[in-house]
Amino acid sequence: MSSSLKRLLLGDPLATAQAREERLSRVTGLAVFASDALSSVAYATEEILLALALAGAAAFAWTLPIGTAIGLLLVVVATSYWQTVHAYPSGGGAYTVALNNLGKTAGLTAAAALMIDYLLTVAVSIAAGVAAITSAVPQLYPWRVSLASLCIVVIMLANLRGVRESGRLFAVPTYLFIASFLLLLAGGAVVLGFRGDAAIVPERPLAAAAAVPFILLLRAFASGCAALTGVEAIANGVQAFRPPEARNAAITLVWMAAILLTLFMGVTYLARSFGVAPQEGETVVSQIARGVFGRTPVYFLVQASTALILLLAANTSFAGFPRLASVLAQDRFLPRQLANMGDRLVYSNGIVILGGLAILLVALFRADTHALIPLYAVGVFLSFTLSQAGMVRRWLRGRKPGWRRGVVINGVGAATTGLVLTVIAGTKFVQGAWIVILLVPCLILIFRKVRRHYLHVTSQLSLEGFRDEEPTGHTVLVPVSGIHRGVVTALHYAQAICSDVEAVTVSLDPAATERLRAHWAEYAPDVPLVVLNSPYRSVVEPIREYLEKVKGRSARHLVTVLLPEFVPAHWWEHLLHNQTALALKAVLLFSKRTVVTSVPHHLTR
Amino acid sequence: MSSSLKRLLLGDPLATAQAREERLSRVTGLAVFASDALSSVAYATEEILLALALAGAAAFAWTLPIGTAIGLLLVVVATSYWQTVHAYPSGGGAYTVALNNLGKTAGLTAAAALMIDYLLTVAVSIAAGVAAITSAVPQLYPWRVSLASLCIVVIMLANLRGVRESGRLFAVPTYLFIASFLLLLAGGAVVLGFRGDAAIVPERPLAAAAAVPFILLLRAFASGCAALTGVEAIANGVQAFRPPEARNAAITLVWMAAILLTLFMGVTYLARSFGVAPQEGETVVSQIARGVFGRTPVYFLVQASTALILLLAANTSFAGFPRLASVLAQDRFLPRQLANMGDRLVYSNGIVILGGLAILLVALFRADTHALIPLYAVGVFLSFTLSQAGMVRRWLRGRKPGWRRGVVINGVGAATTGLVLTVIAGTKFVQGAWIVILLVPCLILIFRKVRRHYLHVTSQLSLEGFRDEEPTGHTVLVPVSGIHRGVVTALHYAQAICSDVEAVTVSLDPAATERLRAHWAEYAPDVPLVVLNSPYRSVVEPIREYLEKVKGRSARHLVTVLLPEFVPAHWWEHLLHNQTALALKAVLLFSKRTVVTSVPHHLTR
Repeated sequence: MSSSLKRLLLGDPLATAQAREERLSRVTGLAVFASDALSSVAYATEEILLALALAGAAAFAWTLPIGTAIGLLLVVVATSYWQTVHAYPSGGGAYTVALNNLGKTAGLTAAAALMIDYLLTVAVSIAAGVAAITSAVPQLYPWRVSLASLCIVVIMLANLRGVRESGRLFAVPTYLFIASFLLLLAGGAVVLGFRGDAAIVPERPLAAAAAVPFILLLRAFASGCAALTGVEAIANGVQAFRPPEARNAAITLVWMAAILLTLFMGVTYLARSFGVAPQEGETVVSQIARGVFGRTPVYFLVQASTALILLLAANTSFAGFPRLASVLAQDRFLPRQLANMGDRLVYSNGIVILGGLAILLVALFRADTHALIPLYAVGVFLSFTLSQAGMVRRWLRGRKPGWRRGVVINGVGAATTGLVLTVIAGTKFVQGAWIVILLVPCLILIFRKVRRHYLHVTSQLSLEGFRDEEPTGHTVLVPVSGIHRGVVTALHYAQAICSDVEAVTVSLDPAATERLRAHWAEYAPDVPLVVLNSPYRSVVEPIREYLEKVKGRSARHLVTVLLPEFVPAHWWEHLLHNQTALALKAVLLFSKRTVVTSVPHHLTR
Repeated sequence: MSSSLKRLLLGDPLATAQAREERLSRVTGLAVFASDALSSVAYATEEILLALALAGAAAFAWTLPIGTAIGLLLVVVATSYWQTVHAYPSGGGAYTVALNNLGKTAGLTAAAALMIDYLLTVAVSIAAGVAAITSAVPQLYPWRVSLASLCIVVIMLANLRGVRESGRLFAVPTYLFIASFLLLLAGGAVVLGFRGDAAIVPERPLAAAAAVPFILLLRAFASGCAALTGVEAIANGVQAFRPPEARNAAITLVWMAAILLTLFMGVTYLARSFGVAPQEGETVVSQIARGVFGRTPVYFLVQASTALILLLAANTSFAGFPRLASVLAQDRFLPRQLANMGDRLVYSNGIVILGGLAILLVALFRADTHALIPLYAVGVFLSFTLSQAGMVRRWLRGRKPGWRRGVVINGVGAATTGLVLTVIAGTKFVQGAWIVILLVPCLILIFRKVRRHYLHVTSQLSLEGFRDEEPTGHTVLVPVSGIHRGVVTALHYAQAICSDVEAVTVSLDPAATERLRAHWAEYAPDVPLVVLNSPYRSVVEPIREYLEKVKGRSARHLVTVLLPEFVPAHWWEHLLHNQTALALKAVLLFSKRTVVTSVPHHLTR
């Protein structure tokens, strides 16, 4: 039943031979890789305003200067990644670049940062996407956590089915988003033009807002840096482009950065000009769009395309996270089962883990974008910094033509992103950045522990110099609570595999034990029945103790514990049986020279 | 490790012989059995006010009339139970009375109602207890769900340790509560006396409030009926009293009813006189106590004793629920593991299930007493009605001396509680009563299904006319993914129990399979290695298919699947191993004539 449900939701299995790659043009490449970066336009401006709001409305005068600083940072980071694209035509993710150039610890740090980053991309994008929906349909606002969880489940199922990163599928929402936001900017410009200067919030001189504490400006800047998340996506996926891969990827990167810059600066300018203040229940973008278009279909188009591109952004993590986990698992840093593809040619375990964690995060933070942002930015800028620093090291080592320019560009990139990382970690520490700062070393520790364990096991299992110490004797114990068909079948099996068979029963009720003895003599006279007492009513403990005694019968005595097990016709009936067998199995697992065998007895309906 | 944590939290195991009973005097009996009933004073008045508030402040004029009606109902119900106490000196719970007199369906209905009732007693009492705490310490209000969950966990642990229903332990909070509430009533009377009539909210004539819709009055009455929950406790526990049991229990019942009546009517009168209106964040009782005493130590004493008796009321369910579940399990209506006492002489499984469900309920309803009440009252009055109706039937059947009076008293009780049940179910249907109305038949269905299953299994397992069809052949299959110490040990075991042994491997990577073949020839030349292909990368499916083929080798061919299993030194390392073995076991469980054996290989640290 659960199997046919799985097939209904996920489709039929796909053969290994069916795996294929699709190469992307620049247009489709932009659609596939830009959703994460572009979608941050939906919340970055709002984050700046929220940070400034703490110092009162006068502080909003700082919106544009801060927006401009973030725009400059974007140019620096994009230029830096432009270099990476050319240097790593096979895909230069932060993990690869840091591992190759800065060593294992840096690589694992980048891996930890990236995993957190992927998880938060899902949580933040879904939260912001749901906010876009609930801004347009306020009735849904109380259901935002459920709605967000539902979105994550749907995306998870789609990915378990195997959504290929198909250009066509992605092109519609991405270009729809770009078009609707360009429309919004144009509309905003027209409205401002018509209303004349009167409509525009008078731009007070910065001096008037000079009273805003510097730390608050830094915090607003750190918040706005959420706009840069996702810029690295193209550098990770260079090999997905049509040849010449590096050239096509680089040009796409420039386009993406240009569009992102336009939309972000445009939205920030409009927010400022319309005097929009952040408020609960409606996003800043929604307020602007409503101000420009009213609650017309165009307004709903803007909201819908915002929600769509945010869902798409969340979706990209479902490709990236499992792939990274698989790479780490192949390097033995994560459990082996993360390395395997499921029957739909996707890394199913990684997808399920990411989905589960994202739902947990969304529920814990009540689907509040603003609460999640401090966690988000730390991971992103940590991987930016490591990736750029790795590039600097690479230039210095290789000294290939143009290395001086490379060092300068990536050096500026690394220094800038490193500085921003410090600002974010410092100003956002209490608001949540500490979680990530604590989590990164924990993850690194786990990676190392897992790998050490696997290596240790391999060495322990080596056949080199191994001589199996064969057992000197063998007894089969059959725990029973009564005598019935299942027990008789089990006793026959026991006699088939060993000549020394004993049944054991734990006496909880003397009368019942007497009845058992009487029946036993009738139905199984050739197998001795050992009766154990249990003052504390435990069934498991007396059997374990008796087992240890039996093991003393010879130097390397082996005991097989044979459990007659019911197999009911329906799954729920399992709860009604075998609880003692289960407990016994759990305890015997740790007992040496003990083999546990289940002899099934199938019940029919 | 988990075992020593268990011992630390729950204490050492207790021997069966250590079980003993303590007989209660009237004074301690009141303490043990009255907490559930008396504690409802903490929220019943508030529920009446909340229901009336919907019609505006004028409707509060109905508070006293409705309170008086509920007081009369209490007299009727207590009188009715006075009869039950005498008729069932060995304890007349609704399940027993309904089962004996009205048949199985009525008995199971009562059982279902009681189980829901026990669960809701925990949820409501804890929610109200936490409300008493957060009224006094408003800073804790945002943490109410966590606080409530914590309380439930603590009570659960105490019960798993085995809190005997010790009179001494219970006497302190119960009598403290009675004393502090009598003090509150006295203080209230003094304040009202001093202030004179001016302080009292002018009692408008009812005519002025006649505009209140009748349905709302019914709803307010239904809400206030929460005051009666727990009245049946003494009738359930007659055998716990010192002889003459029935007499002592009956006198205690009268005392309890009198105290409950005094406190409930007193609080309701004060609420009305002080013009208290229900508000979020502070209970009505807290508002009254603050009005009388100010935020003095006496006020905090009232709040603390309220919280304490509510925790005690929740605690009584942790004795009642598992005991009922055990009785039902012994009658085969519930899974067998609920019938067993744990190693601390308590029904541990029932306690854990009750605790888990209560936490779930408290979380779902955000620890809101008012939201839980509609669910609570339905179960309580359903069991009242069945219990009283059963008594009527009993009088009519037995025709013992005084049966006419008995029929009248219990008849009035049954009719009244039945009517109230209809009122509650009708007026509170949408607010949550429907959940219980739906749940009762579901539970009855489950009881019946479970019992039918157990009877069916017993008949299937009967040895009468059974002839075991012994297998005609036996093959051992050893699934392997590589060759190492664990595999070699498993192969030796396989050869010891059977002459026909085959190793099977699933080829996912042709190169790895070739390496395995080469090693195999070196280390295990005497065991054939079967290589299976897997186009869909499943490891489990090809093995299952091959197993089915092997089973065709003879008419009743038996196959033992032998799984080399790692036993890591630390529990978390389990996640890193045996995932395939686990999946294989799950699938093979349903395969007939298949025995699954785990040969452990212990890893060391």
